Amino acid sequence: MVTMQLPQVTLEWVTPDALGMIERAARTCYKSEDKVGEGSAEKMVVMLIRNKHLAMLEHAVASLRFITDRGVTHELVRHRLASFAQTSTRYCNYAKDKFDNQITVIPMLDGLSIEQLERRAKLYKHMEQVYLAEIAEGIKPQQARDNLPTCLQAEVVVTANFREWLHIFELRTSPAAHPQIRKIMTDARKILADQFPCVFGESHA
Amino acid sequence: MVTMQLPQVTLEWVTPDALGMIERAARTCYKSEDKVGEGSAEKMVVMLIRNKHLAMLEHAVASLRFITDRGVTHELVRHRLASFAQTSTRYCNYAKDKFDNQITVIPMLDGLSIEQLERRAKLYKHMEQVYLAEIAEGIKPQQARDNLPTCLQAEVVVTANFREWLHIFELRTSPAAHPQIRKIMTDARKILADQFPCVFGESHA
Amino acid sequence: MVTMQLPQVTLEWVTPDALGMIERAARTCYKSEDKVGEGSAEKMVVMLIRNKHLAMLEHAVASLRFITDRGVTHELVRHRLASFAQTSTRYCNYAKDKFDNQITVIPMLDGLSIEQLERRAKLYKHMEQVYLAEIAEGIKPQQARDNLPTCLQAEVVVTANFREWLHIFELRTSPAAHPQIRKIMTDARKILADQFPCVFGESHA
Amino acid sequence: MVTMQLPQVTLEWVTPDALGMIERAARTCYKSEDKVGEGSAEKMVVMLIRNKHLAMLEHAVASLRFITDRGVTHELVRHRLASFAQTSTRYCNYAKDKFDNQITVIPMLDGLSIEQLERRAKLYKHMEQVYLAEIAEGIKPQQARDNLPTCLQAEVVVTANFREWLHIFELRTSPAAHPQIRKIMTDARKILADQFPCVFGESHA
Repeated sequence: MVTMQLPQVTLEWVTPDALGMIERAARTCYKSEDKVGEGSAEKMVVMLIRNKHLAMLEHAVASLRFITDRGVTHELVRHRLASFAQTSTRYCNYAKDKFDNQITVIPMLDGLSIEQLERRAKLYKHMEQVYLAEIAEGIKPQQARDNLPTCLQAEVVVTANFREWLHIFELRTSPAAHPQIRKIMTDARKILADQFPCVFGESHA
Repeated sequence: MVTMQLPQVTLEWVTPDALGMIERAARTCYKSEDKVGEGSAEKMVVMLIRNKHLAMLEHAVASLRFITDRGVTHELVRHRLASFAQTSTRYCNYAKDKFDNQITVIPMLDGLSIEQLERRAKLYKHMEQVYLAEIAEGIKPQQARDNLPTCLQAEVVVTANFREWLHIFELRTSPAAHPQIRKIMTDARKILADQFPCVFGESHA
Repeated sequence: MVTMQLPQVTLEWVTPDALGMIERAARTCYKSEDKVGEGSAEKMVVMLIRNKHLAMLEHAVASLRFITDRGVTHELVRHRLASFAQTSTRYCNYAKDKFDNQITVIPMLDGLSIEQLERRAKLYKHMEQVYLAEIAEGIKPQQARDNLPTCLQAEVVVTANFREWLHIFELRTSPAAHPQIRKIMTDARKILADQFPCVFGESHA
Repeated sequence: MVTMQLPQVTLEWVTPDALGMIERAARTCYKSEDKVGEGSAEKMVVMLIRNKHLAMLEHAVASLRFITDRGVTHELVRHRLASFAQTSTRYCNYAKDKFDNQITVIPMLDGLSIEQLERRAKLYKHMEQVYLAEIAEGIKPQQARDNLPTCLQAEVVVTANFREWLHIFELRTSPAAHPQIRKIMTDARKILADQFPCVFGESHA
């Protein structure tokens, strides 16, 4: 039985005292550590972004966990200065364990009619059937994955520094981005903007 | 009508006088340019590899073109120090142009029975049908791609320097690699080994 | 008056629950999150290192602060998957502020005689004199820096993930490394090994 | 005897048919290889740059050789997606071989008076003396380098793809860049602009 799921983003961890860390890094360049004080970190960060001295933002890091589909993850893993841990179609066997003979998909539903959705549902069941039949016949997951769709659910942990996140958000929340990646990255940005408005807030979009 | 294709590798270009270039780079470090002579480039390259001074191998570059499936390309694009140009599921419309209403797949056939292949053939036709029906109904390729399989054909140009190719070959021709990526990377290595045995030949595996 | 200083390393920050984070990243690949339990993180990390599945170690990060010389930092900044914030010879004016008309050097003293050290002391004073004279005459620091020695003190914050730190330590604590970089990297490794022996302990050297 | 030298840039190699290669890479994404024709490569490259689809420019590569000073190379090697081969202060012994007991410097002369230059000349001779004395007394080059100045001549081969060169030129020819790096990068850009005006010409500055 194919399951359908919605995309989702959660924060795993972020550098302790992230703004303070960026300030300490920046003040190392200028030897102005004596100027650290109340509110100085946020002012420094705003100035660094305004002057495009973004290398300092690399000293704060955040990990986010995304639930999305493999069409999106294929684009996502192109970012070079980020790290990824992703559901493996080689090492996950959807016939076993917690998967319990079922695959999960995250199709892009926007604007689909009920008829279109039913037609897709039938297709995804067909794919699951062929996958499970092959597994039952002794084919390995890494071969049976051929039959799984682009909208197969994928979970991926992405670790990147603040500069790289700014870059990812700039590219991936733009109107030119794929709607599914745009949606999860808009959510991701909100999560980080809540904690660090001076870095990820709208005005720096 | 779904088409089936075999994986394939071809060479696009390689640095002119690649070994000579590596030698010139290496001799810049030692200021030993006066020692360039007949056969000195190959000797230098062998020594650099033996001493693991691999940074010098970064000054020769090769582009290879692969025809493979999207399961393989998803792994391939993880290599950070390489560049990629890949068939886009957003900008290619398989209902139009040269695609002529058909998708191409590169399934992993090893060990499949005729019955298993027929079952797959039926599935891939079903996927193509749903894709083409959605396109005909006005859905964009970037949404209809949800219905395409992991074994969808993908063409990808990979540009990387010799050090990175050595690294890629080490990881991707190992018995632990996915059989499909292993196959194309073994072929890729042979293509480069033919021209540059002192870099990509078996003894350095 | 030239000041002399010894090299030094301190820890700035590390990912909260770093081993637990690596485990959560790894279990995302296998969908085995249900197996998290007492002591499971350390076991997972040991297994990942043994199997060279090092990409998972990228999800834990540490920043270290080094006080060293510019000969060493010039080598250090070659590491591509790390981030750097370093004393700037363009934006620091040793005639001003907290520098108070003096430069600091971290020469490599091993095996020097008293006479050799005195000869160096005279040279470094000469360099400082020329630098300060030029600044007094209106030359900017970015031009006067020409006169400063390779052993000029430099402070640098380095942020990198655990996989990259392992790689840095492997290269930079080897007998083939420059003695000054070897010394600070041996110290850096000890700092991280104290907290994370299963990652940075001797047995993984 | 200290020698003085001027900075210098030369081209080592560039991808054969570089614009054609970029076109072939780009057409792989759109499967529009049938549209290759007279003048189509240049049009494609202009369009890619206008649309910021710069990843395609990564499939053409150029190596340039710079003669500059170590203050500049320390900045230069921060570029992550480039490769470097640089005169080694560990493996070059200025007392030997072709160096013949002398060091070469590339000081920043702009606006210096004759008196200032003479004062520098005396300093650089002093540095050379101490360096050569230590070498004569058995100290290794990697330790004696402590005494060499920031303006020590350095030769460096830099290999990077066209996208990275565009990025380097944008940063390093800006008025905010160090005058010495700005000078060599302005020259480097001209060398590439002569061959590829549609990529490196002024209008894309």
